[in-house]
Amino acid sequence: MSPRTSDAPQRVIDAAAQMLARVGLNATSIREVTKLADAPLGSTYHHFPGGKQELLARATLMAGDKVEALLVALLKGGAVQGLQQFLAMWRERLLRSGFRAGCPVLAAAVEEPMDAVPSQPRAAAADVFARWHDHLATALVAEGHAPAAAGELASLVIASVEGAVAMCRALQDIAPFDQVAAQLLRAVAPPAR
Amino acid sequence: MSPRTSDAPQRVIDAAAQMLARVGLNATSIREVTKLADAPLGSTYHHFPGGKQELLARATLMAGDKVEALLVALLKGGAVQGLQQFLAMWRERLLRSGFRAGCPVLAAAVEEPMDAVPSQPRAAAADVFARWHDHLATALVAEGHAPAAAGELASLVIASVEGAVAMCRALQDIAPFDQVAAQLLRAVAPPAR
Repeated sequence: MSPRTSDAPQRVIDAAAQMLARVGLNATSIREVTKLADAPLGSTYHHFPGGKQELLARATLMAGDKVEALLVALLKGGAVQGLQQFLAMWRERLLRSGFRAGCPVLAAAVEEPMDAVPSQPRAAAADVFARWHDHLATALVAEGHAPAAAGELASLVIASVEGAVAMCRALQDIAPFDQVAAQLLRAVAPPAR
Repeated sequence: MSPRTSDAPQRVIDAAAQMLARVGLNATSIREVTKLADAPLGSTYHHFPGGKQELLARATLMAGDKVEALLVALLKGGAVQGLQQFLAMWRERLLRSGFRAGCPVLAAAVEEPMDAVPSQPRAAAADVFARWHDHLATALVAEGHAPAAAGELASLVIASVEGAVAMCRALQDIAPFDQVAAQLLRAVAPPAR
């Protein structure tokens, strides 16, 4: 079996996450994703019998897992330092991509599928947001924030980073991201005792 | 001329904003929008000779104008009180819609059109974000924030409200919005002198 075939399912999931972030849930098609992944169409239908909804839910979870693993690793150095590094990486990603980099999890969250209700990708996005939230909140509590405040701050981080990426994509400018990052780092600073 | 015809262009723009927020940029079609608006298809092509890109840019601007007018009215009572009322209205909108209410401006920002580059709707979203930002920053300066901090806070408000709406749509839960709102109201409180 050639490598182009054996790792096809993973390449298809990667390609689906890319398309999801770029053109949205409804405009992503199994055919285009498979072409982008340079995979055989028959293999895609074989590995994702649930079709597009299943594939996009898997892509959302995979993208969420990657960010989660990164967050967990960075937060080991403390919530403030970890967030700082996470923001620096997203900043680079936006600049390097010419403001085309987007988040497949956000795309899965904001689009209602035209052909299936309830949305499996949306449920996957909910799962991902909840996991990111838990890691951030735990790290913020460890840094001295009260649990309720930590929960609020964790939601503020996720919401405002997602929103800032969208603003930068619209404006083709890094300024909104830098402004949001400055305020977030101020907000998560350990409370005075 | 019957009323169904004379106000058709406005109804078509309203319907386009609705579809944009719900199913995204690429999945919105002139045909479906015209059907939703109960308007004659020929009239849509007549009023929007630039086609889908023009119609969706107009819808993005119209949606942005509505929010801008609301913001301007609410911010007259001061930045903190105005933001509080604005957040309360969005909260109600999310709950009333069963978490289906979305923002057409965000949708225009995060999707690359499959059939046209550069994206007219994206440029419209940039224009809208910039205007919201200016009103918020001006109101925050009037409330005692330094200009640089006011600019950062204005971006934080826009980004985190957009992101919180997306999180609530995914999770089908108002909690992320309430958490973000609590932190935002704390962040925009007038600085101690």
